[in-house]
Amino acid sequence: MTFKSKIKTIEWTQNVSRMIDQRILPKEFKTVDIKTSEEMYYAIKDMIVRGAPAIGIAGAHGIVLAAMEIKTKDKQEFLKELKRKAEYIKSSRPTAVNLMWAADKQIELAESIQGDTNEITEALKQNAIKMENEDIEINKKIGDFGSEAVPKGASILTHCNAGALATVGYGTALGVIRSAFAKDPTIKVFADETRPRQQGARLTTWELTRDGIPTTLITDGMCSYFMSKGMIDMVVVGADRIAANGDTANKIGTYTVAIAAKYHKIPFYIAAPLSTIDISIKSGNDIPIEERSHDEVTHINGDWICAEDVNIINPGFDVTPNELISGIITEKGILRPCYKTSIQNAFNLK
Amino acid sequence: MTFKSKIKTIEWTQNVSRMIDQRILPKEFKTVDIKTSEEMYYAIKDMIVRGAPAIGIAGAHGIVLAAMEIKTKDKQEFLKELKRKAEYIKSSRPTAVNLMWAADKQIELAESIQGDTNEITEALKQNAIKMENEDIEINKKIGDFGSEAVPKGASILTHCNAGALATVGYGTALGVIRSAFAKDPTIKVFADETRPRQQGARLTTWELTRDGIPTTLITDGMCSYFMSKGMIDMVVVGADRIAANGDTANKIGTYTVAIAAKYHKIPFYIAAPLSTIDISIKSGNDIPIEERSHDEVTHINGDWICAEDVNIINPGFDVTPNELISGIITEKGILRPCYKTSIQNAFNLK
Repeated sequence: MTFKSKIKTIEWTQNVSRMIDQRILPKEFKTVDIKTSEEMYYAIKDMIVRGAPAIGIAGAHGIVLAAMEIKTKDKQEFLKELKRKAEYIKSSRPTAVNLMWAADKQIELAESIQGDTNEITEALKQNAIKMENEDIEINKKIGDFGSEAVPKGASILTHCNAGALATVGYGTALGVIRSAFAKDPTIKVFADETRPRQQGARLTTWELTRDGIPTTLITDGMCSYFMSKGMIDMVVVGADRIAANGDTANKIGTYTVAIAAKYHKIPFYIAAPLSTIDISIKSGNDIPIEERSHDEVTHINGDWICAEDVNIINPGFDVTPNELISGIITEKGILRPCYKTSIQNAFNLK
Repeated sequence: MTFKSKIKTIEWTQNVSRMIDQRILPKEFKTVDIKTSEEMYYAIKDMIVRGAPAIGIAGAHGIVLAAMEIKTKDKQEFLKELKRKAEYIKSSRPTAVNLMWAADKQIELAESIQGDTNEITEALKQNAIKMENEDIEINKKIGDFGSEAVPKGASILTHCNAGALATVGYGTALGVIRSAFAKDPTIKVFADETRPRQQGARLTTWELTRDGIPTTLITDGMCSYFMSKGMIDMVVVGADRIAANGDTANKIGTYTVAIAAKYHKIPFYIAAPLSTIDISIKSGNDIPIEERSHDEVTHINGDWICAEDVNIINPGFDVTPNELISGIITEKGILRPCYKTSIQNAFNLK
């Protein structure tokens, strides 16, 4: 059963990539038009757009913008330049595999087109729009499969934002919550703040309350308290990259929540499209972890919050080992341990 | 081996209670003079002074201020009024037992004095100063016992601020770190930010870097990441109230760190004076947990950080069950499981 959400995070329209500016939510709701591949690099890097599936689409849009910028009509030169620009866009954020996946899909398509460079550019545009629509369809399938795992009247904890704002619309983890809420309006959500960038506080509370879903905001350290009080029945989060054995990279802090869930015997689910699974990577140890700016930890809203001569290490992600994961909710159903086998089977079904 | 710390958090001087204003650290270093019992109630409630041992001393000072305010020379009326004011001061924060302990000690003393009301007031002043000195002596003992549990070159994680700023000086958990650092200057500290009030970011990084101890600030969700990388060797935190079975109430988020430490087989210690142990309370279930203002979660530095129609629950503390605690470091030595026995024995030694 599908929920009607009001949010469209990113779309190709009027020859630009139009996206909600997520840096200024929830204070201000504004869209930004990204018009060049360089603008797209910074839109991803500076997190105007964020969330693995959404930056996948942003990557696909970036390739269209790149194609529109290339002057040459020589097809080989065009493709060479397009690939160079694709590598540049892919370097904007190293952890989310969807960015690599979507950019590579576009490059494959460009290489397969028989026509001239104009026809390639047009095909890339059409494909980007198709990927947008597919993203929403996939999320609705994830939502519907996932909702079957949600107990009646459940309180669901989520971390960071794997919502409409992390995708084109609907969301992965929050897609599960939307589909569950459509069937059972007594479910409730706990949203972790998700320091340092507070995507839970800023984005998840914004999009869920906008859609009328009751949401309680908590700080990251509080999750175990509410689990111990029996106030959390399940955890659902998104993913930035999943290894072939099910180990899952997601926003920093996810791993801590997963350990707390295990301690309290609360089911812990990942919700993500198959495009987030990187079967070329055997285990979580091989997933590159992005180191982000120290300012994210030392400052909030531009103000210093600590002593000035403190050291900072700011990993953007952590890896939750497969042993802590109850299931991976995909558009092909809920994958269960042993993930090595269930992931392989899901890819064979594809 | 005792470290020389530069910080004196609270002291009775010139007939006022002079305390560092911890609300504005680390931006500004300023002391405030508290001159009435009502001012003391708000100084504790609004957290100008915080940390269980420090608010114990603040409570003792508050009783002196109360005594100075009472006009009557009739001893029975004086004592009745003093007890009424003591109850008022004790109601400023419900979780930390040291506040109750120190206020009750002062009332006991007042009742035992043979002289007139002036002599009672003078005795309360002298006793408050004695308690300050004892607090520092106790912390140094805690530090020295605790430092024996610190491995050579260890990286020590702490949560919130159980430092000089949580006591009269030196600190409990940070007292352990100071004593360990005096013996071995290769030790390092990881400080959790400690949302919502950021005592780790604001206070712990300030006091440790001021004392020249290398400190890395991390957000609360990051602890498991660094534990999994082998970058944290032990955890030491303070306590607001310890039950007779060793269950320990401390700043919200402590329990999550303790679970993460257990998962990674990293020793997790509590450092606290015996006055923090409430042997009248059997287990953590009976420790009252303070619910604090919603603004602490929804705002940072006065700015909204989330959607406006979100729900908030803001417990100030959580309870770490005794099974997650490797040892309780006190001025009588390190208590080990079974705590019911070791705590009883420590009180018998008193």
